[in-house]
Amino acid sequence: MQVIPGNVTAPVGYTASGVHCGLRKNLNKKDLALILSDRPCSAAAVYTQNLVQGAPIAVTKSHIANGVLRGAICNSGNANTCNADGAEKAVAMCEAVAKELSLSPSDFAIASTGVIGQPLNLDAILKGIPSLVTTLSADGGGDAADAIMTTDLARKELAISFPVGGKEVRIGGIAKGSGMIKPNMATMLCFITTDAAIEPPVLQKALKSITDKSFNRVSVDGDTSTNDMTLVLANGAAGNSPIAEASGPDYDAFYQGLLHVCTYIAKEMARDGEGATKLVECQVKNAPSEEEAVVLAKAVIMSSLVKSAMFGADANWGRILCALGYSGAQFDPTKVDVSFISSKGSVKVCENGFGLPFSEDTAKEILSQAELVIDVDIKLGTESACAWGCDLTYDYVRINGDYRT
Amino acid sequence: MQVIPGNVTAPVGYTASGVHCGLRKNLNKKDLALILSDRPCSAAAVYTQNLVQGAPIAVTKSHIANGVLRGAICNSGNANTCNADGAEKAVAMCEAVAKELSLSPSDFAIASTGVIGQPLNLDAILKGIPSLVTTLSADGGGDAADAIMTTDLARKELAISFPVGGKEVRIGGIAKGSGMIKPNMATMLCFITTDAAIEPPVLQKALKSITDKSFNRVSVDGDTSTNDMTLVLANGAAGNSPIAEASGPDYDAFYQGLLHVCTYIAKEMARDGEGATKLVECQVKNAPSEEEAVVLAKAVIMSSLVKSAMFGADANWGRILCALGYSGAQFDPTKVDVSFISSKGSVKVCENGFGLPFSEDTAKEILSQAELVIDVDIKLGTESACAWGCDLTYDYVRINGDYRT
Repeated sequence: MQVIPGNVTAPVGYTASGVHCGLRKNLNKKDLALILSDRPCSAAAVYTQNLVQGAPIAVTKSHIANGVLRGAICNSGNANTCNADGAEKAVAMCEAVAKELSLSPSDFAIASTGVIGQPLNLDAILKGIPSLVTTLSADGGGDAADAIMTTDLARKELAISFPVGGKEVRIGGIAKGSGMIKPNMATMLCFITTDAAIEPPVLQKALKSITDKSFNRVSVDGDTSTNDMTLVLANGAAGNSPIAEASGPDYDAFYQGLLHVCTYIAKEMARDGEGATKLVECQVKNAPSEEEAVVLAKAVIMSSLVKSAMFGADANWGRILCALGYSGAQFDPTKVDVSFISSKGSVKVCENGFGLPFSEDTAKEILSQAELVIDVDIKLGTESACAWGCDLTYDYVRINGDYRT
Repeated sequence: MQVIPGNVTAPVGYTASGVHCGLRKNLNKKDLALILSDRPCSAAAVYTQNLVQGAPIAVTKSHIANGVLRGAICNSGNANTCNADGAEKAVAMCEAVAKELSLSPSDFAIASTGVIGQPLNLDAILKGIPSLVTTLSADGGGDAADAIMTTDLARKELAISFPVGGKEVRIGGIAKGSGMIKPNMATMLCFITTDAAIEPPVLQKALKSITDKSFNRVSVDGDTSTNDMTLVLANGAAGNSPIAEASGPDYDAFYQGLLHVCTYIAKEMARDGEGATKLVECQVKNAPSEEEAVVLAKAVIMSSLVKSAMFGADANWGRILCALGYSGAQFDPTKVDVSFISSKGSVKVCENGFGLPFSEDTAKEILSQAELVIDVDIKLGTESACAWGCDLTYDYVRINGDYRT
């Protein structure tokens, strides 16, 4: 498996574009994105588990029902959620892009991200669609990645290449994250393309399993958005023998590739969490089950107190024990070891549930790095899991204190 | 029922004190508190549900097992949690205060609050206990209230008086709250005294029920501490006929009095949440059940995004719908109404799940007040509940980024 340049347009047969249509006031901020395959794709998607869902989600679910899509359209700046005319406008967006491309509206997935509960400026989008289509290009993935961003500071993208059944296959992805990111698909949109040939039900099965190991292990602020979606399109242009079962070496190779892309993007979302200065990983080792390890790791990375301490590079490990303790998972507090690890080394601060003497200066230096690992050894089993989050900072509050203006 | 001056020393027969023994560096910050009854008390307590619990909790549970106590000792500045010698030192504190008062160690509840995982300076406490005892006074409740505070900015105290079976009865309380406050008894210690006569099992039953309606409906940051406790002492000095059953007019009168004190103190803890500038109440009306109303109200007041918006006085009501949606409670998003209410008026921003046009200036003025109500009408039943929280501010991050120094 190797990393290759680009993102959703790195696999064979895809073009993409991103334009400013006018949803965002800033003329330099692209706000409308399109991804297109030159042939029909197997499609799979996972969605937010919020009871309140954006209008685009219902429309996408309807369009993807037959397992086949040609592309996806996405706007930022407005979530088109909790609006009386939301579904109608989401359908109108698909119709407009389909007409421009002489395709069917049901060939498109649709997503929207931004403020909830404000009417969507459909006119701006309809006016923007012609230029969105004419600018489609095999180099357009970056523009699409920019156009789906909201408070993201960094573009999230990756492409990889690896063999499946003797053919070289590519997977590329773009995503927007930032706030409202929490396990169970939080405000994130992720669009993944591949030129692998894989049947829709098998692709869906792989995506569901991988989501639980990647996107569902990330938290920024514990809020679960109304509009989250990860979409995968697979157009088969690589010419591999179609993967028709969720087992065997071809499936395994594809699964590992998709897992790599999703895990990378999930971590990038945590790193670029609203206001974040640090990527914080919690790895829980030797738990009785992977499920319990996940519950424990998530509790640590979601704790506002742990997150604030990581911002301050304060080795306040008692808060980690505390978060483990209220996670709901069963463990023996008197067996737990905790260490902090970064590029500057590691320091063990707690052994068998009790504090160890340690150098505050060393701990401070370790915790002052941009990537930290909180290492928790439960010593009750053999299973491990990681979860990813970020620190809680002044900027998180600033960004979210006045998001709509 | 009327509010009277004072706190835990307002009921007949109680003295209290608070001194600086040296756990805190600041010589002006009292860090050791004592509350004493002149006669044995019926005692009841509720504790944190964190799996990791402070050493003092186990000691208190043991001492309260017979339902009778004489008083309580509490230090701030160190939680005496996750220390190998924690239980030993908690017992030593009870022994020292008992010896000074010629009582039994098991006459005392004990509590500690502060940093987790650092050895407790027992010597300082032992040296402080003689002056703690000699300064006991019927005016000492305020000193005790000050001594249990950590990052609290305001003393939390209340006393009320009301008739029970023809006798005037008093209930008084002090508490520390601030950070790590969340439903299910979060970092809070609350000591309540009363001169009512009530049998221990009945007192315990009342306290448990009331905790679910008061302390368990408050959140500051979603973290649940290791050391939370609410303790009630009832010494019978009022001379009412002892309340021996959890029913009847005497029980009802006492229950309402205790509920009033606990609810008041719970709201004061939310108001003085770490860094908070606002008390935010969410009232959920017309839910199918009280339980669902509580789940919905808690989700709203716990959402970092809602909390940040309240800090910024930003009427971003979509985040409220979003929080309701991921709460886990069932409801119909297309029936929900949302209004913001404060002393400056009210503004309805969402009806039947969709946004209403409203004046941003009016909303800003309403949301700029120090007490806000987020009013949510589910329109699916007849049950209601409130939960209390606060806004998320720069100061929360500042306080928690470097708590230990």
